[in-house]
Amino acid sequence: MTYRAPVKDMLFCMEHLAGLERVAQLPGFEEAGLDTAQAVLSECAKLNEDVIAPLNRDGDQNPSAWKDGHVATTPGFKAAFRQFVEGGWQGLQHPAEFGGQGLPKTIGAACIEMVNGANLSFALCPLLTDGAIEALLTAGSPEQQSVYLPKMIDGSWTGTMNLTEPQAGSDLAAVRTRAEPQPDGTYRIFGTKIFITFGEHDMADNIVHLVLARVAGAPEGVKGISLFIVPKYLVNGDGSLGARNDVHCVSIEHKLGIKASPTAVMQYGDAGGAVGMLIGEENRGLEYMFIMMNAARYAVGMQGVALAERAYQQAVQYARDRVQSRPADGSLPGAGPILHHPDVRRMLMTMRAYTEGCRAMALVAASAYDAAHAHPDAEVRRDNQAFYEFMVPLVKGFSTEMSIDVASLGVQVHGGMGFIEETGAAQYYRDAKILTIYEGTTAIQANDLVGRKTVRDGGKVARSIAAQIERTEADLASQGGAAAAAVRMRLEAARRAFLDVVDFVVAEARTRPGAAYAGSVPYLMLAGNLMAGWQMARALLVAEDRRARGEEPAFMAAKVATARFYADHILSKAPGVRDSIVDGSIGVTDMALEAF
Amino acid sequence: MTYRAPVKDMLFCMEHLAGLERVAQLPGFEEAGLDTAQAVLSECAKLNEDVIAPLNRDGDQNPSAWKDGHVATTPGFKAAFRQFVEGGWQGLQHPAEFGGQGLPKTIGAACIEMVNGANLSFALCPLLTDGAIEALLTAGSPEQQSVYLPKMIDGSWTGTMNLTEPQAGSDLAAVRTRAEPQPDGTYRIFGTKIFITFGEHDMADNIVHLVLARVAGAPEGVKGISLFIVPKYLVNGDGSLGARNDVHCVSIEHKLGIKASPTAVMQYGDAGGAVGMLIGEENRGLEYMFIMMNAARYAVGMQGVALAERAYQQAVQYARDRVQSRPADGSLPGAGPILHHPDVRRMLMTMRAYTEGCRAMALVAASAYDAAHAHPDAEVRRDNQAFYEFMVPLVKGFSTEMSIDVASLGVQVHGGMGFIEETGAAQYYRDAKILTIYEGTTAIQANDLVGRKTVRDGGKVARSIAAQIERTEADLASQGGAAAAAVRMRLEAARRAFLDVVDFVVAEARTRPGAAYAGSVPYLMLAGNLMAGWQMARALLVAEDRRARGEEPAFMAAKVATARFYADHILSKAPGVRDSIVDGSIGVTDMALEAF
Repeated sequence: MTYRAPVKDMLFCMEHLAGLERVAQLPGFEEAGLDTAQAVLSECAKLNEDVIAPLNRDGDQNPSAWKDGHVATTPGFKAAFRQFVEGGWQGLQHPAEFGGQGLPKTIGAACIEMVNGANLSFALCPLLTDGAIEALLTAGSPEQQSVYLPKMIDGSWTGTMNLTEPQAGSDLAAVRTRAEPQPDGTYRIFGTKIFITFGEHDMADNIVHLVLARVAGAPEGVKGISLFIVPKYLVNGDGSLGARNDVHCVSIEHKLGIKASPTAVMQYGDAGGAVGMLIGEENRGLEYMFIMMNAARYAVGMQGVALAERAYQQAVQYARDRVQSRPADGSLPGAGPILHHPDVRRMLMTMRAYTEGCRAMALVAASAYDAAHAHPDAEVRRDNQAFYEFMVPLVKGFSTEMSIDVASLGVQVHGGMGFIEETGAAQYYRDAKILTIYEGTTAIQANDLVGRKTVRDGGKVARSIAAQIERTEADLASQGGAAAAAVRMRLEAARRAFLDVVDFVVAEARTRPGAAYAGSVPYLMLAGNLMAGWQMARALLVAEDRRARGEEPAFMAAKVATARFYADHILSKAPGVRDSIVDGSIGVTDMALEAF
Repeated sequence: MTYRAPVKDMLFCMEHLAGLERVAQLPGFEEAGLDTAQAVLSECAKLNEDVIAPLNRDGDQNPSAWKDGHVATTPGFKAAFRQFVEGGWQGLQHPAEFGGQGLPKTIGAACIEMVNGANLSFALCPLLTDGAIEALLTAGSPEQQSVYLPKMIDGSWTGTMNLTEPQAGSDLAAVRTRAEPQPDGTYRIFGTKIFITFGEHDMADNIVHLVLARVAGAPEGVKGISLFIVPKYLVNGDGSLGARNDVHCVSIEHKLGIKASPTAVMQYGDAGGAVGMLIGEENRGLEYMFIMMNAARYAVGMQGVALAERAYQQAVQYARDRVQSRPADGSLPGAGPILHHPDVRRMLMTMRAYTEGCRAMALVAASAYDAAHAHPDAEVRRDNQAFYEFMVPLVKGFSTEMSIDVASLGVQVHGGMGFIEETGAAQYYRDAKILTIYEGTTAIQANDLVGRKTVRDGGKVARSIAAQIERTEADLASQGGAAAAAVRMRLEAARRAFLDVVDFVVAEARTRPGAAYAGSVPYLMLAGNLMAGWQMARALLVAEDRRARGEEPAFMAAKVATARFYADHILSKAPGVRDSIVDGSIGVTDMALEAF
């Protein structure tokens, strides 16, 4: 099964929903118009379809393997990574002064979808490196930047993110890894980190670990955590590689999915201490790590979109090829491809609608990121930043939760064959389950949505987005067609449900926080559903308009059908979720703990 | 992690919802009252908890293995199966005249849940044997019954169900395996069958394959299929085992889950033809196979309940043990067991509510089965049969679909540890995915629900059940408590949604079958949700009453909380699903096939 990058839909989203031409008016992005996007996406598609995608199944069958502290990646990964970095893909969104291409996130995000669609395990290595680059760009000293960034951007070295410890999990307050200051200004690092993605591998010359640790005497909790660079090989003054640092991979995990991506247990300082360089100031590590984590959270959301796209493509192919039974609705005189079966179509439409909706949501968020960083007007920057920050937990949480359902439907379309590993559909089902967990579980995203993104500003940003959605409803009403009318009805109901929940959450957070947080994940799901559905509604307006003008009628007709399906089958869940949140907190909090 | 059979909840359902005392008034079931149920369940729990459950993870790590036509099951399985059959568990629901215990399904179903909760892969062997026994009881000749049934009921021999062929999948009209009549009245069978559960193994002396095949000259399609007994070893006149039959296991599948259960490719007749004995009459094979399949469908629904229960138990244990982070709602001063985290409680309540609701639904259906078979009054038998038949696709379809969500939540509760195979939560997530596929996919169950169970009688049975639900709503209103009021509101909304859908399906099935079938699976999910939610509402009434009388207040309070949670968080989905079905068929059918 090959993977075809969904270039056409990506360009549609960029042009018509994310406003790429406006992005290309931002200072520094003047070259990043539609032509550039087209050229970049088509190059990116070629590499991913031809080189990286075919290794996806190999990676599952022949995962990364640990031996004596070394990790051998799946055969073919190393060479493919060479091609990836030689094509400049690691540096796509990073500054030209360090060798990057300086493209906007609006384009970069689509490329990230592609490499993840091609091969989720493979893509994790550049994904984590991107995050480490971001952190160094923001908080690294000029010297650190000049030593590490060019090599990371050109792909000679990769990066990792070391947060989790066995006793701490997601609770960074419980981090115990310690850093001892040395007379030369460096630190010695001691401790164990787990769940370190690509913590050890053979695809690059060096691995730059960014490590959270506690300096002796630091305050308790998250306010006493500092961030350190701990390279696998120390770097000499001339930039060449020096001594092996005292950091070692002691094992890798046996996992449900993403088996080609080595998940390492890293041991720091067993032989005297790993040499670490402080990033920024002591005790501000969490703040810097969040830079990295926010980039990674968005990217994990894109992984959800990417995986869903791939599962969809494989299911469609199977449904075209597999001939079986007369359809239940009698639409064929005898047996035919199962694509004719009504429920197979419903499943495929569900997969497609979720995927397109979440892609559109993510690309719209990406263009807000670009405006937030590059727009000359501070107020515009601030508004876009607020919008982007509201969207990140939705992109991460909703797109990954939906990817599990989509992958499960993908297996289901295959029937019994889906349960046989060689078919390949089961791999997506296994791989998908990590996406709702790493870089912060869905519950952690939802806490962020409730606390920092909704309660903190009293629901202001949430309501301002709802006001924008209301304008889309008015546009749908003016459009006048049956599909637009159907979508408008569902969009309005979902928006009202969302506003009720925002009011509820804001009101309850202080007086009855248990009630507000009992509905946090349902709120995230409702909000993500609404935002993706809103983009599908906007897409419908564009598509109806283009179709009326005879432009790409087949593509536009499919977009209209998908938007309508989204509204009737996915957005229609929103009012019920509102009821669960607003009326249902007692059901969550009433159970005695000992009765579970 | 041990498995604890949920005996208390089972007995609660039997006594208060399924009316076990009424079952015990049926002729033949006079001994099967609550005391018997208690004794049987407690014995059954002991075996499953102590012997069978501990082998579950072994089976996943050390699956059944094929070599030279033989299949070695996981070490320990053979001895455990001996204990299982020696305890009389294979014969629990089968007639005493062939060595069974003749207990009602109301009790038997709970025992089936237990063995599946203990070990889904292991349980498949008796599950399929049960089906083969049913088919022989109904359609076998007295001689066939006397040769095969005692040995199958005492567990010396096991049974299989051979339907699927590579080209045919679920489409039995496409079966090509052929049967050639012989002068001695037997047949020679030639063909290949796939996906044969426990088609070969080492736990019994003989394997009795029931095989669908086509006699030369038979009518095309499903009306030309006959059913044959094809034993692995032929049986001599004195009942001893004779020659090896010409049926061989040529391979087993490498699967996503239920790895300990060998899924065999069976080759018939490579060396001259496998000897087969016709069951009943030629060309009535499908009818007989449906006896087997209906028993198996109900049992697979129970597998969903069982798996969900086990996933829940493991998740609760983890949530009690794992200390991490201060809860988002500030309910603890610092880090505590994650059971205190609001979203963990929401997840656990979701798992629990689905599980209890589906268990109650299945046990109520089982008591209807018992009445349908044993009640002296023909009209009562007929009504109960109609009720049971309506419930089977819901028990199968809804309970298995929910089990995937529950298993996924189970992994989620574990966070990153859930994705590590050694934790065990991931196995349930992998195992669960087969349940919505085998014995008829959810779509096949939904076609049955729409066609045979709803449209054929113009919605009569569906509406009569809705009328019963309305009476429960009245009881909830009379009860007067806050929980009852909350549940009543959701139950009424879900019932009305259900009735709208029944009307829609009945009206559209003839004129626009595409529209009716586009909503078939959503209809099944809505109906299953309603039926399980109805039982939870009935459970709430009982629990409030008992609680008021001071009987088992902790258990009853938990039941009330769970019922309320079910209503607010699960039943509340029903109106949205109604909208998808009634308004959303265009979204399913409008997409051009080439646009997928």
